Amino acid sequence: MQPMTPIVYVPEDSDFSIHNLPYGVFQTSSLDKRLGVAIGDYVLDLREAANQGFLSSLSSEYFQGSDFNPIMELDRKAWKALRSDIQDVVYGKTSESIKSHQSLLSKLFIPKHQVSMHLPAKIGDYTDFYSSKEHATNVGTMFRGADNALNPNWVHLPVGYHGRSSSIIISGQDIRRPCGQLKGNQEQAPHYGPTQALDFELEMAFFVGKGNALFESIPAKAARDYIFGMVLMNDWSARDIQRWEYVPLGPFGAKNFATSISPWIVPLEALEPFRVPAPIQEPKVLEYLERASDASTFDIHLTVSIQSNSMRKPQLICESNFRYLYWTMEQQLAHHTVTGCNLRPGDLLASGTISGKSENSFGSMLELSWGGSKPLRLEETQEQRVYLQDGDQIEIHGYCQKENIRVGFGSCHGKILPASPLT
Amino acid sequence: MQPMTPIVYVPEDSDFSIHNLPYGVFQTSSLDKRLGVAIGDYVLDLREAANQGFLSSLSSEYFQGSDFNPIMELDRKAWKALRSDIQDVVYGKTSESIKSHQSLLSKLFIPKHQVSMHLPAKIGDYTDFYSSKEHATNVGTMFRGADNALNPNWVHLPVGYHGRSSSIIISGQDIRRPCGQLKGNQEQAPHYGPTQALDFELEMAFFVGKGNALFESIPAKAARDYIFGMVLMNDWSARDIQRWEYVPLGPFGAKNFATSISPWIVPLEALEPFRVPAPIQEPKVLEYLERASDASTFDIHLTVSIQSNSMRKPQLICESNFRYLYWTMEQQLAHHTVTGCNLRPGDLLASGTISGKSENSFGSMLELSWGGSKPLRLEETQEQRVYLQDGDQIEIHGYCQKENIRVGFGSCHGKILPASPLT
Repeated sequence: MQPMTPIVYVPEDSDFSIHNLPYGVFQTSSLDKRLGVAIGDYVLDLREAANQGFLSSLSSEYFQGSDFNPIMELDRKAWKALRSDIQDVVYGKTSESIKSHQSLLSKLFIPKHQVSMHLPAKIGDYTDFYSSKEHATNVGTMFRGADNALNPNWVHLPVGYHGRSSSIIISGQDIRRPCGQLKGNQEQAPHYGPTQALDFELEMAFFVGKGNALFESIPAKAARDYIFGMVLMNDWSARDIQRWEYVPLGPFGAKNFATSISPWIVPLEALEPFRVPAPIQEPKVLEYLERASDASTFDIHLTVSIQSNSMRKPQLICESNFRYLYWTMEQQLAHHTVTGCNLRPGDLLASGTISGKSENSFGSMLELSWGGSKPLRLEETQEQRVYLQDGDQIEIHGYCQKENIRVGFGSCHGKILPASPLT
Repeated sequence: MQPMTPIVYVPEDSDFSIHNLPYGVFQTSSLDKRLGVAIGDYVLDLREAANQGFLSSLSSEYFQGSDFNPIMELDRKAWKALRSDIQDVVYGKTSESIKSHQSLLSKLFIPKHQVSMHLPAKIGDYTDFYSSKEHATNVGTMFRGADNALNPNWVHLPVGYHGRSSSIIISGQDIRRPCGQLKGNQEQAPHYGPTQALDFELEMAFFVGKGNALFESIPAKAARDYIFGMVLMNDWSARDIQRWEYVPLGPFGAKNFATSISPWIVPLEALEPFRVPAPIQEPKVLEYLERASDASTFDIHLTVSIQSNSMRKPQLICESNFRYLYWTMEQQLAHHTVTGCNLRPGDLLASGTISGKSENSFGSMLELSWGGSKPLRLEETQEQRVYLQDGDQIEIHGYCQKENIRVGFGSCHGKILPASPLT
């Protein structure tokens, strides 16, 4: 049997191979906001495909809106059937007429450079976990000293906090440097001003598919079916605001001004070939957090690069991997619902900063510059960085690769604009 | 001039006097979910009133939906005009035909016992502050000892955290006792089980009216125009879960399982007669938090009562007042947006537990029983309470009274159902 080839050209190194087929919301100068799937350098217009009768597993009503919430609300069986329909379209199996019908082809597949992207879902609530042991230890050491770095609860539950959903933005949108209360160690009282410690956080996040009813809990072993797909995330943070405000109720203004996500939701199905064993957990977790016997996570390579205003090309500053995380997505979901908290389709649950053991795998400036004591050198321009400066652009990439199968997340990037303080 | 009388009967002691006219979403066995206004023992059907042409300040489209978000998105001028239209209807000034036309009257005014209430808005994000100095001091003393009770940041900024919007429910809905991780001081490791320290929190909250754009800040002096109206709130809390989980990122599962609000949003206009000076703040706050020269808050009497399964009538356990709060709503709003965080119409910002100085004004069981050391006695049945037991009902009331003008919030109540642990 010959390997099938898609009916549009897909570069060999594309993040958006036929094995991926991620979901996003796009628009063009002539098309209003709608659902799409990325394939190579094209976007498949799902509304058009549905209206042509090519997505027969679901009523075409699901594709008339401008977010994926109604589809997320379905179950894994429905998602698989839709994915299969999409594969058939992309392989030209749906209809013989697709391949030969150039005007239909060009209505279905829109060149990526013609689209602008939007948030793929209405995000009801956003939760951020803190699931990298290395990151929690690093930050704990700097904020509270080595003796109190990792709190006793950390190994027993996936620590998390409720974030701000209104300020989740799509990759590419600029970030205004936030102002707030800052207090130096030597100062008697705080002052108002732009943060001097603006940071990125390398994260990934997943969208909840079908939700759970209020007062209903989902144990980790059953949680996989509630996960729709994953994106890259940058949880922009102001460390000086955070340090002053965070005791006792956690981060607030330090993290509520902007959180960027990549536009394409990679479905869990596309990640299946990249399952790897999850880290061993010791001490043993409570039963509701127990993982399936094939306790697994995904091998997702992650990189972060920085480019200042003066640089012509970005410089890699971090290489990490999603598999480093101690707590799995299923455990995060189980812990989130253990009290009976209801998750809704389109809710976003993020990993927390993903740091590894080695210094070049740390997922924030705070860790990379070790709280300012080891400034980063930008080779091209010989600039130094402790935290982000105005004009700096941070770009996160993520991909899975196994032999010649590649499934990528594209990019999550954003540029820092100068503050505009109240006068 | 004779005082005008409304065209429906309003009992003298009604919370829902002609001076109030609060907004809520109701339905009946024959009417679908729609917008209404409480007056005495009736609900004015705003959709019906608009369709009759009685609410001419706004297009009738605003009243065809089932939440107040589109109206919240307007500004104070529009809210005032609408309120004036509604006053005219209630006084029978809109049309001479109302008073004499019995079938029209009974279409417009629906007896309250026929309606069931729903959340009045789509709540995008929910934020809970911690603005009672007495409460923060009490909890801090019990959680961290008297020496670290009030953190240094507390007097400089209104401490708050992002809450969970999905589990905000309407007064009257039962609360399932949550399960989670608990760890006694003597235990080596946590165990899973139903909370043994289920608590209420006496709070009030306000709905954001028009919002602000991302990266735009609103100083306290300009914040009043962004507040649509207020409700009562009970932020149910599991103290044992909280104690184990809350360091370092704040409360999570301890508070995400249910938050009850009263169904009627009292507009800020209705509260104007009850303005009182706000507490003096020392040290001086930063400029963005500076209050208007008439720095004021509202004199809102608050009570909490408990009724166990065995009791025939509720027992009052707390008398507090909204005016005790150190930080005003305008300051909370200013601090929330100081980083550029965007608020959206329908967002909910809550006060935190409202405790006063005297022991009978403490707004939670944690404080009333002083962490369990002083159990409450339920007089009727001689039961004791440290925290809430299954079958207990907690009811919050709130009202303003000045001479013969009364503006009330009605009730926010909920009953505890037994836990249903994962097996």
